[in-house]
Amino acid sequence: MRTAAQPEAIEDYDMKTISLERSYGGTQGVYAHRSDTCNCDMTFAVYLPPQAQERPCPVVWYLSGLTCTHANVMEKGEYRRAAALLGLIVVCPDTGPRGDDVPDDPGNWQFGSGAGFYLDATCPPFDVNYRMYSYVSEELPHLIASEFPADMDRQGVFGHSMGGHGAITLALKHPDRFRSCSAFAPIARPTVAGWSRPAFERYLGTDEGAWRQYDSCALIEDGFRFPELLVDQGAADAFLEDGLRPSELQRACEQAGIRLNLRMQEGYGHSYYFISTFMEDHLKRHPERFNR
Amino acid sequence: MRTAAQPEAIEDYDMKTISLERSYGGTQGVYAHRSDTCNCDMTFAVYLPPQAQERPCPVVWYLSGLTCTHANVMEKGEYRRAAALLGLIVVCPDTGPRGDDVPDDPGNWQFGSGAGFYLDATCPPFDVNYRMYSYVSEELPHLIASEFPADMDRQGVFGHSMGGHGAITLALKHPDRFRSCSAFAPIARPTVAGWSRPAFERYLGTDEGAWRQYDSCALIEDGFRFPELLVDQGAADAFLEDGLRPSELQRACEQAGIRLNLRMQEGYGHSYYFISTFMEDHLKRHPERFNR
Repeated sequence: MRTAAQPEAIEDYDMKTISLERSYGGTQGVYAHRSDTCNCDMTFAVYLPPQAQERPCPVVWYLSGLTCTHANVMEKGEYRRAAALLGLIVVCPDTGPRGDDVPDDPGNWQFGSGAGFYLDATCPPFDVNYRMYSYVSEELPHLIASEFPADMDRQGVFGHSMGGHGAITLALKHPDRFRSCSAFAPIARPTVAGWSRPAFERYLGTDEGAWRQYDSCALIEDGFRFPELLVDQGAADAFLEDGLRPSELQRACEQAGIRLNLRMQEGYGHSYYFISTFMEDHLKRHPERFNR
Repeated sequence: MRTAAQPEAIEDYDMKTISLERSYGGTQGVYAHRSDTCNCDMTFAVYLPPQAQERPCPVVWYLSGLTCTHANVMEKGEYRRAAALLGLIVVCPDTGPRGDDVPDDPGNWQFGSGAGFYLDATCPPFDVNYRMYSYVSEELPHLIASEFPADMDRQGVFGHSMGGHGAITLALKHPDRFRSCSAFAPIARPTVAGWSRPAFERYLGTDEGAWRQYDSCALIEDGFRFPELLVDQGAADAFLEDGLRPSELQRACEQAGIRLNLRMQEGYGHSYYFISTFMEDHLKRHPERFNR
């Protein structure tokens, strides 16, 4: 089995600890490092459960949505109680490159910093920094494997909205690395949804064929597979019809034979009140798949 | 038994709903109303558990610390999971009056808006608005009893830091109303602690005898009683020695025969990472006392 996240050589990640807080018997840390992939300093959060003092622990990656940093889910996601019980490391990356030298579109929350869409931009000037696919699939996993007591043979990935898109596309492209994948209200068809099409064009250019590698539905249509997906979707989510399109994911999974457990949650919206409600259930389901 | 929080007459509270979010099967709401006590608009949060759709539910009041609004614990306190399981309404008031017409001391986080100390100021100009003791002990309970499916015969109170001070002083003065009381890192001796003495002088004047009614240790020394208190205190809390002084609360309780369960929690600080870790345990202990 491929374990892409093992470091190939000893590297100096120049990682700084920003803060450390005891929580549920473990440690919630915030760290920063110089990213060679994104050509800027990047910040991320890692929760180490109590069990990590004794042995390497499985890793669950949480990818956040538009406008978020590492901090939103760290403060509002309510993942630490379950992670401590289950012995899971939870890694929460930022959602895009940031800094004075990073091109941005201030005032546009659907593009630029906070809207990296977990893709590698190919169009100048964004191709220098907006390389979040490589960042979350290569550079940050190498750092985590090197710097934390992480069992990189047992990894899961989940996320919310843009981060749900990130989680499913990552799992589809790395089924050998991720044993489990789930999502809260993922952007299932970002190449079509109104809030992501303009971003894809600016990051990737007008050749829509190049967009398909960053679209869950398109990846499935193009033959990528993952054994099982859990998706919770708020039925009162204002972005349901255009932005999220869970029915298109359902159709793609049905045609591909992918087991999709799509749960429409009555009354729930798109916020962290929705995410936190179902956080524990998601975290419990990831380790169930780690030993299969 | 006195049930001070029952409304004496039908009143128009002019309450507005600011937001409503489904969470853990219940509803997290934020509301605003014109406060006759504080002479300004006040905002507060109420979590209604799923059980509140069927019957009146017990109420647990959470009083927040310096610099907080209703929102800090609502976002970071992680109380809804346990409240939903236990069928508890959780009410989270603001920590002081706010608005353009409210005298404040901008830049001073230990006085003014966000630092009401749950007392009724007697010194101009603060005596017009800074009446948080009357607000949380009279006006807001009347509103809650009138507008929500609340079982006001079963109430508990808890809080953090300045709000732990508020919770314990409120319980000591209303043992007939509150059946349970607990605190995270309460300011046990605010008349002496460096961060509250200057505020008490500006709110209440130089006669320190008048301060004692808003000091947990002094109230106990002066004969006020509550059967049982639970206090969690982070052992790594930077405010431990001067600001919080749990050992003085311990001494006062010992001398008065009050059962104090003071738990020093190794490694924990003063933040919501500490509060959220022990939130569930506190919420479980409150209803254990409701039916005694």
